[in-house]
Amino acid sequence: MAKTISIIGLESFPLVKKGDNLPKLIVDAMRREGVTVGNHDIIVIAQKIVSKTEGRIVRLRDVKPSKKAFEIAKVTRKDPRHIELILHETENVVKASEQILIVKGRTGLVCLNAGIDKSNVEGDDAHALLPIDPDESARRIRSEIRELTGKNVAVVICDTFSRPFRRAQVNFVIGIAGISPFKDYRGQKDLFGYVIKVKRAAVADGIAAASELAMGQGKEAIPVVIIKQLNRVEWTEKTSADELLLPKEEDLFAGTL
Amino acid sequence: MAKTISIIGLESFPLVKKGDNLPKLIVDAMRREGVTVGNHDIIVIAQKIVSKTEGRIVRLRDVKPSKKAFEIAKVTRKDPRHIELILHETENVVKASEQILIVKGRTGLVCLNAGIDKSNVEGDDAHALLPIDPDESARRIRSEIRELTGKNVAVVICDTFSRPFRRAQVNFVIGIAGISPFKDYRGQKDLFGYVIKVKRAAVADGIAAASELAMGQGKEAIPVVIIKQLNRVEWTEKTSADELLLPKEEDLFAGTL
Repeated sequence: MAKTISIIGLESFPLVKKGDNLPKLIVDAMRREGVTVGNHDIIVIAQKIVSKTEGRIVRLRDVKPSKKAFEIAKVTRKDPRHIELILHETENVVKASEQILIVKGRTGLVCLNAGIDKSNVEGDDAHALLPIDPDESARRIRSEIRELTGKNVAVVICDTFSRPFRRAQVNFVIGIAGISPFKDYRGQKDLFGYVIKVKRAAVADGIAAASELAMGQGKEAIPVVIIKQLNRVEWTEKTSADELLLPKEEDLFAGTL
Repeated sequence: MAKTISIIGLESFPLVKKGDNLPKLIVDAMRREGVTVGNHDIIVIAQKIVSKTEGRIVRLRDVKPSKKAFEIAKVTRKDPRHIELILHETENVVKASEQILIVKGRTGLVCLNAGIDKSNVEGDDAHALLPIDPDESARRIRSEIRELTGKNVAVVICDTFSRPFRRAQVNFVIGIAGISPFKDYRGQKDLFGYVIKVKRAAVADGIAAASELAMGQGKEAIPVVIIKQLNRVEWTEKTSADELLLPKEEDLFAGTL
């Protein structure tokens, strides 16, 4: 009677490099580990391996800092080449102070260092940038998995971020294909027939956070997670992780931090 | 070879009322639905049923608004009795504007309306307050489940909140017993031997967010979720959901909202 959702971490996923065929690696790893590819499976992929296969790795030795990068480096006390990398991915700087650089990135995502980081990237000065268009990456991977298997899966690309008000990091969605980010309850009735006013679940962020339980952040090397039997999601072709981004003028928390 | 974490939603959980024995209801539902109680299972419980069994339901007709409540009601255009309820649970008001009241609650949690809400509570003017001490509730439920079954489980109490920067709601931990809220990676090495600098996963918030995938927010009536085979958590007697709360002076996002 109990309803079980499975969160399956692929444990034999190889290290990837630029140009690798990620959809094929995923399907191969699933087959190798005895995980069937099923219709309505949700495949969650860590940003890092998407960035690597798309060649979004930059070495600091190849970066020439601009004047603005040097200025911000002075304030933040960070490497000006690292700052230059971040500025390239930035729409506007939100906060620069000692050891802190928070920006609104190209896609509208507000986060530390434009999501650029060093962990699990080979090369002592190599940094991974976010994919150019994570929604497009998700759509491409989804469509190639469908070609390889004939199955209609969803693809969610996630990354780990710090958040306001709470310690430590969780995974959030940065790219999505096949399902809506939301489950909308507004206008529906609750257990006792009262109309639910302001409830919309960010199901895709729940999926990202859940996948982190299987992925880990260190050397676990589990960058792909399959979620099965999750029936609460809305399947749709029209979707984007951008729908989750809240402009400041709509943010209930504006002025609180 | 693939590693599977199971998220099991109990589908036959009864409606609860003040004084009901929640640990016994959980163990009974698990047995009824063929879910074994195992050592190191994580039992995630929606705040609403903890509040109900602890008698934390208040009807607005029984509330006498203070002068301050009337003042804030004018600004927020909310029912002064609802405001009075919120103020009772508040350490300080963080933001009051039309239709918005964000406070730092008794336990230090910053959220809308001190977490007080109406959904899935019987009675047209009945509202549920958060448990008095959610960590203590979690410890009590954990110890009673151990008495009933002999098993060492963890208990996580979660609630659904809006968050800054992102649309829609996810589940967060408000009370915890048996496991640390964190998995700490700082000082450990990544895949390529580089030391990971600032990574600490908020595993308990991941657990809360994952449980929401099975719980839902409407009339699904799945207020208890069992997580099995999650081996990444650190088992400890010394733990509190308060560890997740970030004081403003340590918040990297201070000044960004």
